[in-house]
Order: sequence, then C-alpha cells, then structure tokens
Amino acid sequence: MKKSVNTKWIKDMQFDSEVNGHHITIDAIPEVGGSDAGPRPKMLMLTALAGCTGMDVVSILQKMRVEVESFNIDVSAEETEEHPKHFTHMHIVYRFGGKDLPMDKLQKAVELSQDRYCGVSFMYRKAMQVTHEIVIESK
Amino acid sequence: MKKSVNTKWIKDMQFDSEVNGHHITIDAIPEVGGSDAGPRPKMLMLTALAGCTGMDVVSILQKMRVEVESFNIDVSAEETEEHPKHFTHMHIVYRFGGKDLPMDKLQKAVELSQDRYCGVSFMYRKAMQVTHEIVIESK
Repeated sequence: MKKSVNTKWIKDMQFDSEVNGHHITIDAIPEVGGSDAGPRPKMLMLTALAGCTGMDVVSILQKMRVEVESFNIDVSAEETEEHPKHFTHMHIVYRFGGKDLPMDKLQKAVELSQDRYCGVSFMYRKAMQVTHEIVIESK
Repeated sequence: MKKSVNTKWIKDMQFDSEVNGHHITIDAIPEVGGSDAGPRPKMLMLTALAGCTGMDVVSILQKMRVEVESFNIDVSAEETEEHPKHFTHMHIVYRFGGKDLPMDKLQKAVELSQDRYCGVSFMYRKAMQVTHEIVIESK
C-alpha cells in the first residue's frame, strides 16, 4: 500500500506538513535560523515510535481485559555529534499506572508489540539498537 | 547527545506527544478504535524525513544564494500488508518554484543533504530503499 505526506516550505526553517489530513508545523531553533514554531523534524521519529507501540499495547491490553489508569511512553535517543547526525540507540520506557496491575500481562503486551506488530520498531532496529523497560508507577 | 520525547495516553487510541515543548496529537482511524484526532504515528516518519532534508536544502540554497519562491517536499512510502507493517521504500519529490532556477545547484543542494547532512535519510536507508527526484514547477 502506498502512503504519502506533503510538506510545504513556509519561511526560513518552518514547514507545514499535511499528514492524514492534519497539519503539523515543524521548525528549527533560532540558533540555526528557525523560530521554534514547531518541533524539530528528526524528533518526530521518537513520537512515531511511541505512538506505534503505544497503540499496539492499548489494543492488546483491551483484549486481555487489563485496565490501566495511566500510560506514558518515554522514548529517549542517543544522537551522534557528527554529520549525518543520527540516532544510534533508542530506549522506550513504558510507564503504567493503575490498581493491582499484572506485570506478566503488561510484559506480554509490550513484547507482542515489539516482536510482532510495531512496524516502526521493526524498521528502527535495522538502523540502531532499540531497547525497552516497563515501570509500574505507584500512586 | 541524548534527546527525549514524552507521550501520554489520552483515551482509546489517542495520545499526546510532547516534542521540543510542542504538543502533537496522534490517533488511529475509527475502524480500529480511534477518532482521527491526529495523524497516524508511523506517518510521522515521512514528515521527519521531509523536514530533515527540507531544512538542509533551504539552508544550502541560502548559502548558494539561490532564491526559490516555493518549495514542496512530497514523500511517499510503500507499506507491507503483513505484520509488522513497515515501509520498504520511500520516494522524495523535491518541487521547486521560482524564476530561472538553476537545476545544477538544486541538484547539488539535494545531494549534499542526501549524502552528507540528513540523519533521517541516513537512518532510513539502513531499513529501506530511499530514492528522490527534483521537479522545477512552471508557474
């Protein structure tokens, strides 16, 4: 299946990207000629990963009838200093909040996403190391 | 250098991702339990690529004193039908508009981005084929 995104230069380092009918502004920092009107584009790779695996996990937990009260996904990445500046490692922290959460089922849901469903993880693992951990947050 | 993005589950398939202090909503389509409140996360990989190479090209053309009136970047991707659904090929169309634009300099700017500066292209090329073309649009 073919998917596409159209991105239009607005001014300086600012672009408007139309994605699934939604508009996202991306921009650079003032130090390199931008005005910080939106995030840096490369950082959207982290959002893509968080959202892809996050949606998998929500969907799998629903099927498992595990109810979480909160769910946060922190993705951090190590970036090289030299050009082309790229990520060498991403780490995902899955943070769940709720009552009597079953760690084994949370782990199963995360592993199903990482090993079978999340296409973004699958692609990124060809280019860098992708690791993860699961944290149950106490209230 | 370490970079990070925090993504919070809102409801159903909807997440809010904080990226460089900006908030982006991501969501799925109704057919899979979402409400299309924002783009699909994997599609942000295309925006990341367009923005990364687009900022390079704008910056290089400025140094070359090439003035363009319009600049659009269309990124299309071929996605597999099977899990994990991933992209096997991305194609970038750089569309420039302006008066008497020098194709050789546009090509040079695009090649510098693709070969030396764009970290997103560099990473994606490890996971899939990435191709491009340049179009000068007549007014």
